[in-house]
Amino acid sequence: MAAGPVWVAAGACRRGKSDTGLAGMAPLAGAGAVLAGAAAVALLSAALVLRELPLDAVLQRAFSLHKAHSIKDMENTLQLVRNIIPPQTSKKHKGQDGRIGVIGGCQEYTGAPYFAAISALKVGADLSHVFCTREAAPVIKSYSPELIVHPVLDSPGAVHDVEEWLPRLHALVVGPGLGRDDTLLENVKGILEAAKARDIPVVIDADGLWLIAQHPALIQGYRKAVLTPNHVEFSRLSEAVLREPGNGSDREAVWRLSQALGNVTVVRKGEQDVLSDGEQVLECAQEGSSRRCGGQGDLLSGALGVLVHWALLAGPEKTNGCSPLLLAAVGACSLTRQCSHQAFQKHGRSTTTTDMIAEVGPAFHRLFEA
Amino acid sequence: MAAGPVWVAAGACRRGKSDTGLAGMAPLAGAGAVLAGAAAVALLSAALVLRELPLDAVLQRAFSLHKAHSIKDMENTLQLVRNIIPPQTSKKHKGQDGRIGVIGGCQEYTGAPYFAAISALKVGADLSHVFCTREAAPVIKSYSPELIVHPVLDSPGAVHDVEEWLPRLHALVVGPGLGRDDTLLENVKGILEAAKARDIPVVIDADGLWLIAQHPALIQGYRKAVLTPNHVEFSRLSEAVLREPGNGSDREAVWRLSQALGNVTVVRKGEQDVLSDGEQVLECAQEGSSRRCGGQGDLLSGALGVLVHWALLAGPEKTNGCSPLLLAAVGACSLTRQCSHQAFQKHGRSTTTTDMIAEVGPAFHRLFEA
Repeated sequence: MAAGPVWVAAGACRRGKSDTGLAGMAPLAGAGAVLAGAAAVALLSAALVLRELPLDAVLQRAFSLHKAHSIKDMENTLQLVRNIIPPQTSKKHKGQDGRIGVIGGCQEYTGAPYFAAISALKVGADLSHVFCTREAAPVIKSYSPELIVHPVLDSPGAVHDVEEWLPRLHALVVGPGLGRDDTLLENVKGILEAAKARDIPVVIDADGLWLIAQHPALIQGYRKAVLTPNHVEFSRLSEAVLREPGNGSDREAVWRLSQALGNVTVVRKGEQDVLSDGEQVLECAQEGSSRRCGGQGDLLSGALGVLVHWALLAGPEKTNGCSPLLLAAVGACSLTRQCSHQAFQKHGRSTTTTDMIAEVGPAFHRLFEA
Repeated sequence: MAAGPVWVAAGACRRGKSDTGLAGMAPLAGAGAVLAGAAAVALLSAALVLRELPLDAVLQRAFSLHKAHSIKDMENTLQLVRNIIPPQTSKKHKGQDGRIGVIGGCQEYTGAPYFAAISALKVGADLSHVFCTREAAPVIKSYSPELIVHPVLDSPGAVHDVEEWLPRLHALVVGPGLGRDDTLLENVKGILEAAKARDIPVVIDADGLWLIAQHPALIQGYRKAVLTPNHVEFSRLSEAVLREPGNGSDREAVWRLSQALGNVTVVRKGEQDVLSDGEQVLECAQEGSSRRCGGQGDLLSGALGVLVHWALLAGPEKTNGCSPLLLAAVGACSLTRQCSHQAFQKHGRSTTTTDMIAEVGPAFHRLFEA
């Protein structure tokens, strides 16, 4: 797969205006082919806001990003991701590198929460919890002795049971294998409210996004939330929030949804992943593979849970003024694609998510530690 | 195992007539020893219909096949299989390369539906579902987090529960690990009717074939069905449908059964697999192994579920006028035999189906992508 065209922020902007709202953007082909010979993460300027903001303000915002760090290519962006990765030292205690909770796992779906939780561990979290239904628990436990699995999600005291664990969790991943049972969704509403009350970052995927599409207010304005919709989920959210199907360019549509949600970070997965916090728009075209088997989104959400925690912990001096959640998302998208790429190189069409998760270690090292 | 004699269509036909109905066929030894030094897929002309059709019609049919593509050897047939394999592109969404449902899994049998469902994924499907009994579900789930397992097959609302998923499935594989419990078979009758009503292709194996032997009308004339009987299952079907034990030559017997079922595609597994859609007869003698452990038929049926979907999706220009279901069956038989061959080379007498499934990726690549 060839890397997509590379879009660069601010410095490449030209004064102008167009119907698409993308005026001011110029493609700079080839600027990002730095890593592994095939990767490109690109930043789009905030020129998307042209319709609502004066151009000067747009450029200022874009240039402020540009000033903060020279975004000439993916390598520089990945360097910022590297900055947020906690240093390896022998002085740590268990749990300091991340205690992640996954909310999901029901009658039909048991693989998805496992994929998310094990990916969090493989990225470097110390402890990974799953909060699922009673009957899903023994199955998820059976996949791996590494996970701590709580069979509480369909119990009458589900919210309370999860809430008791929240003080010990650094991030929640809500949705993998959740399903659409009304009782479960009602419990997840309560869990989300409890997480917000404690200022715990949440990554929301899969049927967690179904819930958000029913009740956008649940997440409105919560800046420690990241939504990771695929094509279908993105359209559903756009319809729910903006009363439009999310048409127009990917970049504008993602920016508009994030804006409308009060700067909740949105990661639209696709041929290129498009990321926005309602201010900046980034695109990740790190080479992945053509494989679209189920479970890759769970790898992404689990990895993102850890990276969001690390990015928030790192503080502004490490993120160089960039949104920590956006940086975490760049890291998780790049990593997921690199895992997919490496697994596909080995297994071709027979690649499954298990093969990709086996690549988390080598892919992480290659992207962020080499 | 040595490759069988190679039978070639039409061009090798001689005018003539015999009691066996095989007049017009001539063996062309050695014409197909092309791939892996030991493989042979052969096409028999429709000369089998001599008893009921004028010879000219037979030859016309045979020649029309011959005109459509030169069937000189297996390589050409495999090339047609290659044509139906969807291209690898980064533009796809999850699910586009196949969402397969397996109907089976009961008190005794849990391995079979797992083998079929995981084989579908390893061939290249994106999502693989299993619809089984309540108590079989946690076991099947525990074999692999890649599968989506629905514990519904023995519930009073089984047909409705499966029917709700049918719009999201491209093909059904009915029978692996089904067993012969009357309630389950009654539910499967309803599921088959629902699949037919939605024009969803179905592969039927194992005790799914037991059900068809009791009620041939269930599948009569449904041209999107493939039956994959072994020796015993084939005799039972022939008795049920033709009131004869399916004696005579394999090729004629398979052709006759397919004809009698209204051109349902029949794959009779054996030393050579014999395939017919009631018009053409093909034989697959791709080198396999002498190992006959349980589960190989599940690998075949799962792979066939994906390939049938791909073949129907490919359209006539890709299949060059050949029956898409027959081409899919050639692909699945060749692949299963190649997996068996490769696994046996490594593990000899101790080879099990799990070892064969581990070969799906490399075998697929060798046959269809090299």
